Amino acid sequence: MLPTRLAHLSTSIRTANLDALALNPGSSLVYLTGLHFHLMERPTVAFFTADAAPVLVLPELEMQKVKDLSFEVTTFPYGEDPATWDQVFLEAGRSLKLEGKRIGIEPLHMRILEFQKVKIIAGTRECPDATQVVGQLRACKEADELAAMRSAVKVAQSALEATIPSIKVGVTEKEIAAELVVNLLRLGSQSDMPFDPIVSSGPNSANPHSVPSDRKLRTGDLLVVDWGAAVDGYISDLTRTFAVGKVDEDFRKIHQVVLEANAAGRAAVRPGVPCGQVDSAARAVIDNAGYGKYFTHRTGHGIGMEPHEDPYIRSGNMQLLEPGMTFTIEPGIYLPGRNGVRIEDNMVITKNSAECMSDMPRDLIEVG
Amino acid sequence: MLPTRLAHLSTSIRTANLDALALNPGSSLVYLTGLHFHLMERPTVAFFTADAAPVLVLPELEMQKVKDLSFEVTTFPYGEDPATWDQVFLEAGRSLKLEGKRIGIEPLHMRILEFQKVKIIAGTRECPDATQVVGQLRACKEADELAAMRSAVKVAQSALEATIPSIKVGVTEKEIAAELVVNLLRLGSQSDMPFDPIVSSGPNSANPHSVPSDRKLRTGDLLVVDWGAAVDGYISDLTRTFAVGKVDEDFRKIHQVVLEANAAGRAAVRPGVPCGQVDSAARAVIDNAGYGKYFTHRTGHGIGMEPHEDPYIRSGNMQLLEPGMTFTIEPGIYLPGRNGVRIEDNMVITKNSAECMSDMPRDLIEVG
Repeated sequence: MLPTRLAHLSTSIRTANLDALALNPGSSLVYLTGLHFHLMERPTVAFFTADAAPVLVLPELEMQKVKDLSFEVTTFPYGEDPATWDQVFLEAGRSLKLEGKRIGIEPLHMRILEFQKVKIIAGTRECPDATQVVGQLRACKEADELAAMRSAVKVAQSALEATIPSIKVGVTEKEIAAELVVNLLRLGSQSDMPFDPIVSSGPNSANPHSVPSDRKLRTGDLLVVDWGAAVDGYISDLTRTFAVGKVDEDFRKIHQVVLEANAAGRAAVRPGVPCGQVDSAARAVIDNAGYGKYFTHRTGHGIGMEPHEDPYIRSGNMQLLEPGMTFTIEPGIYLPGRNGVRIEDNMVITKNSAECMSDMPRDLIEVG
Repeated sequence: MLPTRLAHLSTSIRTANLDALALNPGSSLVYLTGLHFHLMERPTVAFFTADAAPVLVLPELEMQKVKDLSFEVTTFPYGEDPATWDQVFLEAGRSLKLEGKRIGIEPLHMRILEFQKVKIIAGTRECPDATQVVGQLRACKEADELAAMRSAVKVAQSALEATIPSIKVGVTEKEIAAELVVNLLRLGSQSDMPFDPIVSSGPNSANPHSVPSDRKLRTGDLLVVDWGAAVDGYISDLTRTFAVGKVDEDFRKIHQVVLEANAAGRAAVRPGVPCGQVDSAARAVIDNAGYGKYFTHRTGHGIGMEPHEDPYIRSGNMQLLEPGMTFTIEPGIYLPGRNGVRIEDNMVITKNSAECMSDMPRDLIEVG
């Protein structure tokens, strides 16, 4: 598997007219090499070129991780004294004849710490944004990646189902979140989960990125749960909205509108469609119901090894959906100070159509 | 609390001769403002100056997070179209008259994504490493920070004690790690834990940064558990080594040596001592026993909001320990392909001495 990906990478590096790609620890490095390193105060950087074996500059105490690789890697380990590190990076760069050359980087992942080491080699030469070099390989998932994502959806759905009985009036958002996390782990999620669950009730649910608080559930609240699991390095990212006891008619109304927007978004998904068109399909439902200004975010984002990645289902994005792409459809309506609704599913583009990987009921279920 | 920290920051910014400090989401921003943001594809940057209210550039959908702050912040929100973001950053910079000025950054935390936005404002002016500006404030913990860390130590110790009964011959490292994580959560750790527990047995324990595997425990293994909890945003980071049934005499020997090195390291800790001297005290014990080349890492690192921060207990580090500093003492011996031992405790420097926050037995306890 990995040597195949490295072969594809060689082609991508040539196409992008780069002399090398430099990656720090993170999902692109895992995707290409299977190597997991901590992102810490000791810089670790891998250099990939079109022709030579990858070169890895890393702390000596991480050397055990590279001893059983199934492909060749040239290593430049360094010790505990930071004063010695620049020289090691320089030697690594020389071994690939990269001095003053075009070394691409991923701006979303590389820190200034590692970038400064790359610049020791690149000198005054600009380091171009190479996000698409690995990004285009990662965007279209292979069969084993999709299998992991389907498992991550199943684990997440089972965990929320197991948590529903403990959702009651008087229980806090934090308590529900803790119970949900325990259930995620018990049912098979990795402990490094994609993100902490959002459990937001009443006025808090009007904040799309709310953090679970000590607020206790009250009758009449809407309750938004945005959660996911991780299996074999791949994630799920779902949202369901519940009614705590009887809720006002206008909250039922916004739930119904979001439900229809979610369905419209999912129905618009197929190969060859621009991302922006999917956003428009979901947004039109909410606009037409008169809630347009309360849908404050894009309709979705890619998922895979990371909770947010290409493709972004955003107004105006002309990127075309391709078979193997995986992403969320998650329209919402947020009434500031009152209540919010979001319904989020995980899609995969198939050869001629699309499939929704998540199937938990989307109706406004009464809990508590 | 926060306005006090912002007042200290003003002084630090002046002392460092900076026009501003730019921070992206992370622990320094939380320390100064209490604001938690996702590190994602939408850049969020806060600009702090010596005189004006902090300026925050952020996605519109995060605006709810800043509405209840106890101090003044000037916000520059942007929408979902990335093409509009640079202009918003430029306006934010202009509001503080920062064009072409000296804007400090934290290389360990800032990504190229946010750095590119800072450079729109700073232009060709260099952005100096300002790690120490917030770092020196964060290094010496206040009473409430120490209370959180003591809780994090207690939660971690209780969670490992609750896990010990399930450590048996035939159980995998992954299963023990999962049980430990569930116990950490049940006993009060936040779900965003400092790091995934390391549970490494037999030859795997000879890798200081091992990842829990499907390897089953066997009689004669050493078992290294390196774990921690997070409480109120502060962490603990401990290690204990167990014997799975009867182990060879030479493994008992290295455990005894590490135990003595741990004690020597802890005994060397007090205000005014250079970090390097503490490292030497622990290392001398291992060197004298003839295992020096198998102690492949520094003796410890600072802990607090992050699992690795200042001060680093590293050979040659002349930084002096000060009251309120918190760090690990964690000597180890790693026999490649065979077994490893590490014993790690969490220390705090007091006014005239030091205190070990962790008190779980350090002896080689037989399990399984």
